Amino acid sequence: MAGNSFGELFKITSFGESHGPALGVVVDGCPAGLTIDLDFIQAELNKRRPGQSKLSTARSEGDQLEILSGVFEQKTLGTPICMLVRNADQRSADYDNLKDIFRPSHADYTYQAKYGHRDHRGGGRQSARETISRVMAGALAKLILREYGIQVQAFVHSVSELELALADENIHPELAWHFESRCPDAEMDAQIRTRILQAKAEKDSLGGVIRCFCTGVPVGLGEPVFDKLHADLGKAMLSINAVKGIEFGSGFSGTHLRGSENNDEFLSENGKIRTASNRSGGIQGGISNGERIDFKVAFKPVASIGKPQKSMNTSGEEVMLEINGRHDPCVLPRAVVIVEAMAALVLADHLLRNRSSRMQPLYPESPLTS
Amino acid sequence: MAGNSFGELFKITSFGESHGPALGVVVDGCPAGLTIDLDFIQAELNKRRPGQSKLSTARSEGDQLEILSGVFEQKTLGTPICMLVRNADQRSADYDNLKDIFRPSHADYTYQAKYGHRDHRGGGRQSARETISRVMAGALAKLILREYGIQVQAFVHSVSELELALADENIHPELAWHFESRCPDAEMDAQIRTRILQAKAEKDSLGGVIRCFCTGVPVGLGEPVFDKLHADLGKAMLSINAVKGIEFGSGFSGTHLRGSENNDEFLSENGKIRTASNRSGGIQGGISNGERIDFKVAFKPVASIGKPQKSMNTSGEEVMLEINGRHDPCVLPRAVVIVEAMAALVLADHLLRNRSSRMQPLYPESPLTS
Amino acid sequence: MAGNSFGELFKITSFGESHGPALGVVVDGCPAGLTIDLDFIQAELNKRRPGQSKLSTARSEGDQLEILSGVFEQKTLGTPICMLVRNADQRSADYDNLKDIFRPSHADYTYQAKYGHRDHRGGGRQSARETISRVMAGALAKLILREYGIQVQAFVHSVSELELALADENIHPELAWHFESRCPDAEMDAQIRTRILQAKAEKDSLGGVIRCFCTGVPVGLGEPVFDKLHADLGKAMLSINAVKGIEFGSGFSGTHLRGSENNDEFLSENGKIRTASNRSGGIQGGISNGERIDFKVAFKPVASIGKPQKSMNTSGEEVMLEINGRHDPCVLPRAVVIVEAMAALVLADHLLRNRSSRMQPLYPESPLTS
Amino acid sequence: MAGNSFGELFKITSFGESHGPALGVVVDGCPAGLTIDLDFIQAELNKRRPGQSKLSTARSEGDQLEILSGVFEQKTLGTPICMLVRNADQRSADYDNLKDIFRPSHADYTYQAKYGHRDHRGGGRQSARETISRVMAGALAKLILREYGIQVQAFVHSVSELELALADENIHPELAWHFESRCPDAEMDAQIRTRILQAKAEKDSLGGVIRCFCTGVPVGLGEPVFDKLHADLGKAMLSINAVKGIEFGSGFSGTHLRGSENNDEFLSENGKIRTASNRSGGIQGGISNGERIDFKVAFKPVASIGKPQKSMNTSGEEVMLEINGRHDPCVLPRAVVIVEAMAALVLADHLLRNRSSRMQPLYPESPLTS
Repeated sequence: MAGNSFGELFKITSFGESHGPALGVVVDGCPAGLTIDLDFIQAELNKRRPGQSKLSTARSEGDQLEILSGVFEQKTLGTPICMLVRNADQRSADYDNLKDIFRPSHADYTYQAKYGHRDHRGGGRQSARETISRVMAGALAKLILREYGIQVQAFVHSVSELELALADENIHPELAWHFESRCPDAEMDAQIRTRILQAKAEKDSLGGVIRCFCTGVPVGLGEPVFDKLHADLGKAMLSINAVKGIEFGSGFSGTHLRGSENNDEFLSENGKIRTASNRSGGIQGGISNGERIDFKVAFKPVASIGKPQKSMNTSGEEVMLEINGRHDPCVLPRAVVIVEAMAALVLADHLLRNRSSRMQPLYPESPLTS
Repeated sequence: MAGNSFGELFKITSFGESHGPALGVVVDGCPAGLTIDLDFIQAELNKRRPGQSKLSTARSEGDQLEILSGVFEQKTLGTPICMLVRNADQRSADYDNLKDIFRPSHADYTYQAKYGHRDHRGGGRQSARETISRVMAGALAKLILREYGIQVQAFVHSVSELELALADENIHPELAWHFESRCPDAEMDAQIRTRILQAKAEKDSLGGVIRCFCTGVPVGLGEPVFDKLHADLGKAMLSINAVKGIEFGSGFSGTHLRGSENNDEFLSENGKIRTASNRSGGIQGGISNGERIDFKVAFKPVASIGKPQKSMNTSGEEVMLEINGRHDPCVLPRAVVIVEAMAALVLADHLLRNRSSRMQPLYPESPLTS
Repeated sequence: MAGNSFGELFKITSFGESHGPALGVVVDGCPAGLTIDLDFIQAELNKRRPGQSKLSTARSEGDQLEILSGVFEQKTLGTPICMLVRNADQRSADYDNLKDIFRPSHADYTYQAKYGHRDHRGGGRQSARETISRVMAGALAKLILREYGIQVQAFVHSVSELELALADENIHPELAWHFESRCPDAEMDAQIRTRILQAKAEKDSLGGVIRCFCTGVPVGLGEPVFDKLHADLGKAMLSINAVKGIEFGSGFSGTHLRGSENNDEFLSENGKIRTASNRSGGIQGGISNGERIDFKVAFKPVASIGKPQKSMNTSGEEVMLEINGRHDPCVLPRAVVIVEAMAALVLADHLLRNRSSRMQPLYPESPLTS
Repeated sequence: MAGNSFGELFKITSFGESHGPALGVVVDGCPAGLTIDLDFIQAELNKRRPGQSKLSTARSEGDQLEILSGVFEQKTLGTPICMLVRNADQRSADYDNLKDIFRPSHADYTYQAKYGHRDHRGGGRQSARETISRVMAGALAKLILREYGIQVQAFVHSVSELELALADENIHPELAWHFESRCPDAEMDAQIRTRILQAKAEKDSLGGVIRCFCTGVPVGLGEPVFDKLHADLGKAMLSINAVKGIEFGSGFSGTHLRGSENNDEFLSENGKIRTASNRSGGIQGGISNGERIDFKVAFKPVASIGKPQKSMNTSGEEVMLEINGRHDPCVLPRAVVIVEAMAALVLADHLLRNRSSRMQPLYPESPLTS
């Protein structure tokens, strides 16, 4: 109930503080018999790691994966998989002056009010370092999805008002990893990088939008009332630090269309039911329809900025604050893999949940023939 | 797991098909000792009832509340409260021609694919009639919130590109119920009504945006990692039929701001910690900060339209379809109370969940003095 | 959290008070495509109904099944199934004198202390009438189990110190329904009936033990750490009114054996792995091993007795109490179907849960070929 | 769903294999502000540690506690607490000969059948080393309970047919820790020790019964339908390795009594409602009544024995097996603290759950005054 678990059948529990000994995750419900590719999980962590480029914070963390349980002879056992990363480059003293001050648009004040006791060092558990747990678990989910031909690919769609203007069919999200900005277009990448470095120089920060495509998703995933596939994806995204909005398919702009303009007509393609357009974003009535799942996630500008701001301290006095720690001027490039991880977690979970939607034969029939 | 329950401590389970005997909800976890105001719950149902005005469907349902359990001498017992509404004005025959056709941007196809067996009459469980369950349960949640001085008020913010342009301080959401469009502004109400009737005449439909304010929310609600208050509100909203997006505070437009522009500075007001602005939408780090919670929800244009559309039938043949049932040309006016209901459910749940955030004295101390 | 739901994937939520309008249950997670046999569910209700014989209470309830949702054309839709039974023969006035008195070994006092507000009529929600919800849901679970060749059969093993002494291989639980006592042996049935009528005449009550066999259970059901199959069965049984103990296989008497005496050696039978004995009761390490599941459930003597007892009232005064309502002198005969229902619920749930234990092919492959 | 979590509000997730890198637990939902006593938690682990006396296995493990998260300046943060113990003295080679053989009355066969892939070393996750996770989490629960004056004390009640015969009022469970057998009586301790060493010498094993008392439990804990306090305690106990039965208060022997003999009459004691006897075991209708909670747990004789047994291998051949690893001849002495841990987890969870049973004032009123 304290909200550190996510998922139902593929269920993860995250733990750890930014300046505590470690950050980690327990994955309970990963089916037995999945081959584990440790290099892949580490590579996913590397995509989120600080210090990848000049665009991100100078905190330098190896973020080295350690697996404590659930895997034997490179295959999952069906038992809980605990993965963790030790914290290394902590400069807790950097935060001494923040011990008694509430940073604007951070969760210092709300944590203090809720719990009455708080780890102020690096934001403690409010830190986006918590997303390490999500990336590790998400990597595991991706390994499952891969077995079923499902791919999750996100990319930076916009930073500030700089927005990728390509037509959908010309977007190749896999190119995102070739560009420091994680925007899959050379021209836009250059503009975004310049803009981020400029904000950094001005001790300010930027926000933006990440877009995510999920392809190869079979028809039928999602539970149709409260646990609609897009409702669960929405919760997953909104639970990421700094996210303030999400939209699917035509989303907010679709509210300007008429039904006759927004509906996705059906057609037959090689004997398969398809839709002529995809304004639904691949989900109808909360259930995947076999088209590409497509959504956009809004990240606010980073709250930690070097510019002076008015704030208050724990004694109720107004103070001026300049934050001088190591912060990202824009989290978008590092957040791409986090968006993917959360999407993968939702899809893996619903893949397992969907196994109970119908009466079906017992599997496996003969339990020892595996 | 089949996704018909919502909430953790204040937990609801919804049931019923559009043309089945009844729609209902079981609320488990409503604290004992709450006085039940049946007229209030019925009044909430009336706000969502079809046939309220020319703007909505002609289906005429009394939607009469019936309580089967959990209440004794007008007060809750702490036991499950089952509420239901019988279906009355069903014209199932209207749907005979839809038995084998998948309506575009409806869930006919995805339900068929998922379950292999489907109640086509009125959309069965995909019907927005399911939201009756939410409104009844939400009314109960509002009765709890009222005891703690919390109010949830939604209103129509836009229909198609017609958008309420008032400054935030000039919006009085309680006025919404005086206007058929549920937009709290006479001028905008007139424009929206005209536009909806026009779409209806053209056998087409419209979408729009509902905005919701929650006031009086104490600091500290929300669990900070996966069950962030706005993540749970987001899931709640995205689980409503036809919703395709949600944003909190400055939301998507906030991604165009810099940190120094978007941050909410703290100030002291009569010894209380407040923020000078509210671009966070009342939530920081997933926890309420005592400011007004503020979010916007995007509803796509209604998928059921009279205009001819290309579709497919269950035999895999392409067909032309004209939907001639009784449908709303725009769901926004009737959806206001549904948005409120879902928001109230989330707040009531987190109010109870927050009781476990800290060590605290036993309550009640002397169990029989009540 | 308020504890009125049971199960994870095959999940039921029970509602209703003894003297309220109705008792009911919502089953969420019943797979689509199951053929519903209404007569079977009613027949199960009839096995629990009061007034079946002279051995039970004189309260006369038809306990007529009503289904409100989730079934279309005699088959489950995969949506929630709400079933209810209206209360009819309520004599609430019988309970007026109990309004302010706590009956010994009843839950009057603990409910009052917990909730501060209580429906005293017929015990309200503490009444064993709540088990109607379990029997309806359990009947549905049995319909699923039947499809997989699984049978759940319980019977009265003992009443007071009268105990069925047959060797295991000579017990035919299906005969239980031929005898009013539900003990599958003519001689023992006669003795038990006499003993119960004698206790009734003396305004006293009796307890006893119900034993349950589950046959045809495939190897592999049960989750091995906290949700062991026998742990979930144990919780299921202990949640039934008046149950005070449970043991599996050799149980408490097995604690007197040595490992070499208690272990079940393996052997091969027609190429299948079997055990030579079944002191494990069909479960090893929390997972079914393919042998017959076998457990015993202890029911205390009914707490409601006509004999005078010392008690207290809500004003804290000591009083003498004689309970003159309509009560069973021994619940065992009516509880057999309740034990079966709860066992069926656990097995159906674990059957679905086990679908996620391993990586396996997508099912159904082609979603529309059903 | 894979069953490695326990509890609702005070929720633990266990992970780890016997011969993997570590065993651990994540506790989510521990309220903020609890002072953590590391020495106490380590002392609890020591009570379970192998090699404490000649009565237990020779495997020598320091079982050194490591805390990775959730605690800052000796107090809980309200965030997840991850605790772990590294495995040290593994002799995996001891198990090489068991790789392909199913040990009788162990879970080798059922794991293999369920998952198709298994860590055979030391039983992998089936090993009772998993209970380390429970003991660490249970110690934390005890720290909470202590704040509310609640104590959980278990002791060995019987080994084989040697049974503690003291009257209830003469039992002092706290003495159990002075005796190697954990039976709180010098005479019985001596007999039990002799008996265990004799079984060990004969390469055989013994079972027995642990009894548990919970004192200081306030009236009102437990949710009255499925999550009855004794149902949850029952599940907790049955989930411990080797447990085959549980009974509360008069339990199985109470089935021989009449209602007039088994009922607990009420009386007034210093203005408090008490019962004259405690055959209910401190729980009525699933809710604690303020009396001492009292239950007994049956442990089967250890399945691992040195005596030759008939078994089968993974190729389906019958084999003779002699188990020569390091095993306890009787687990009872080491299991006492495990029973206590599981009971403490259930009580802590229900203590938090009970905070939502009624309408009550907001707490804390002024969020920053802590």
